[in-house]
Amino acid sequence: MECVPNFSEGRDKAKIEKIADAFRGKTSVKLLDYSADADHNRMVVTVVGEPQALKNAVLEAIGIAVKTIDLTKHEGQHPRMGAVDVVPFIPIREVTMEEAIALSKEVAQEAAERYGLPMFLYEKAASGPGRENLSVIRKGEFEGLAEKMQKPEWKPDFGPAQPHPTAGATVIGARMPLVAYNVNLNTDNLEIADKISKVVRHIGGGLRFCKAMGVELTDRGIVQVSMNLTDYTKTSIYRAHELVRIEAARWGVTIAGSEVIGLVPMQALVDVAEYYLGIENFSPAQVLESNLME
Amino acid sequence: MECVPNFSEGRDKAKIEKIADAFRGKTSVKLLDYSADADHNRMVVTVVGEPQALKNAVLEAIGIAVKTIDLTKHEGQHPRMGAVDVVPFIPIREVTMEEAIALSKEVAQEAAERYGLPMFLYEKAASGPGRENLSVIRKGEFEGLAEKMQKPEWKPDFGPAQPHPTAGATVIGARMPLVAYNVNLNTDNLEIADKISKVVRHIGGGLRFCKAMGVELTDRGIVQVSMNLTDYTKTSIYRAHELVRIEAARWGVTIAGSEVIGLVPMQALVDVAEYYLGIENFSPAQVLESNLME
Repeated sequence: MECVPNFSEGRDKAKIEKIADAFRGKTSVKLLDYSADADHNRMVVTVVGEPQALKNAVLEAIGIAVKTIDLTKHEGQHPRMGAVDVVPFIPIREVTMEEAIALSKEVAQEAAERYGLPMFLYEKAASGPGRENLSVIRKGEFEGLAEKMQKPEWKPDFGPAQPHPTAGATVIGARMPLVAYNVNLNTDNLEIADKISKVVRHIGGGLRFCKAMGVELTDRGIVQVSMNLTDYTKTSIYRAHELVRIEAARWGVTIAGSEVIGLVPMQALVDVAEYYLGIENFSPAQVLESNLME
Repeated sequence: MECVPNFSEGRDKAKIEKIADAFRGKTSVKLLDYSADADHNRMVVTVVGEPQALKNAVLEAIGIAVKTIDLTKHEGQHPRMGAVDVVPFIPIREVTMEEAIALSKEVAQEAAERYGLPMFLYEKAASGPGRENLSVIRKGEFEGLAEKMQKPEWKPDFGPAQPHPTAGATVIGARMPLVAYNVNLNTDNLEIADKISKVVRHIGGGLRFCKAMGVELTDRGIVQVSMNLTDYTKTSIYRAHELVRIEAARWGVTIAGSEVIGLVPMQALVDVAEYYLGIENFSPAQVLESNLME
């Protein structure tokens, strides 16, 4: 099982390491990657493990984040409503989506009890169709959470009916592997990145499995279209990339480069190579490493 | 470590299976592929494994081939000078070229002792600059070997100074993984594919690790530039592709598509994706599968 928890701390190295420590030196748990972004003020951890061992490590990390991160003093470009903002479990290799859903509910219940944290189930673990989408649950962010949770339809799935005073609330669930892909633009005009984001993403009439928003990279003086591709088998990286390029051209803007954040399934990159080279009849079994893993 | 031994038997199914059996059911050794060609009268095995386990399996296969293949009665279209014709070791994942060279020398020494087989080191394991190239060592083939080996400059690196009576001699060493990459052109004019091949390949002033030739695809009515990229880390697929495209444009010809033949290391395709998307700061460790394999 894989888990990619997002914590609302991207600047304080000591806190970042403390959270990462929860995934280190544990039997049957492997910390694959963690990266913190100061502009986003957010940390993304990628960890794999046996379900029960992974559950314990995630609960430990949630405890540390709830204790050390104070959302009343938090600012960053990435939307967030909790110290532990979102905790997706992702079935990989020999575990099913059903097991990922069950595990997310176990962690949600336990975290609510231990830390007094409201927990909202989302995606495949959602308790109803109106609660599948992360951005819908998170709308209003931490600052609007107390008011939002007064509405009966925003009662959490586990935990208290009001936000944790400093840690807000957490969205948790199960989903397919996600590709976090950002395209950097040769402009410092955030409005252009926003406009492009709005048309390439699903809700704006764009690609079915694409979420997008404009982000400012202040240290570089440029902006980016920051995307989450929620099913790379249907909305591939190259298609999102080319669509951003086409839309950017409309504003006289070119692509400066791009970033893949965190882990990416091999096939998502192989699809890119196949497209640009026009490779005919390629089989994933031709990748040397795919043979080594069987 | 990967090994792609070539054996001079492409017709007798029983002998072919007996050689393949040396790579089956062994701990830490995996037979990825083997194919026999009756015209070439030759068998190519692709096998990966932990270095020491792989060494033992390769030595066993060499023993079987020396015992069962009689070069005095062998004919086929492919040049050959031994029952075990050529044995390249290829470093993949976490092993270095130095380890591949060392392993090839261990196998060479042991095979010479066990089977009385002269062994010539080639490519990265070669004992001198005149002995790097397979076709130079193999020139004269099995039939000319006894006379060739009388010359002091053709003393083998290990084993007796004359050919094994029925198994000849073996070329063994270490090389980089090879990528077989063909670019199809929207023309039936073989002359254009030949002209492009001659300028993109190393000997014609082209890319350092590129061999190329024009090939006719008669059933499709098109031609292709058929390439071997002998070091994809230095001559990448996209560079070869783009160079063919540029040269084809000179003749008013466009690219119809391309083909990857056989196995390709994951990194060779990741490099392509990185280039076309302009991905910044990508680490191979970000590929999910590379983490799961450790």
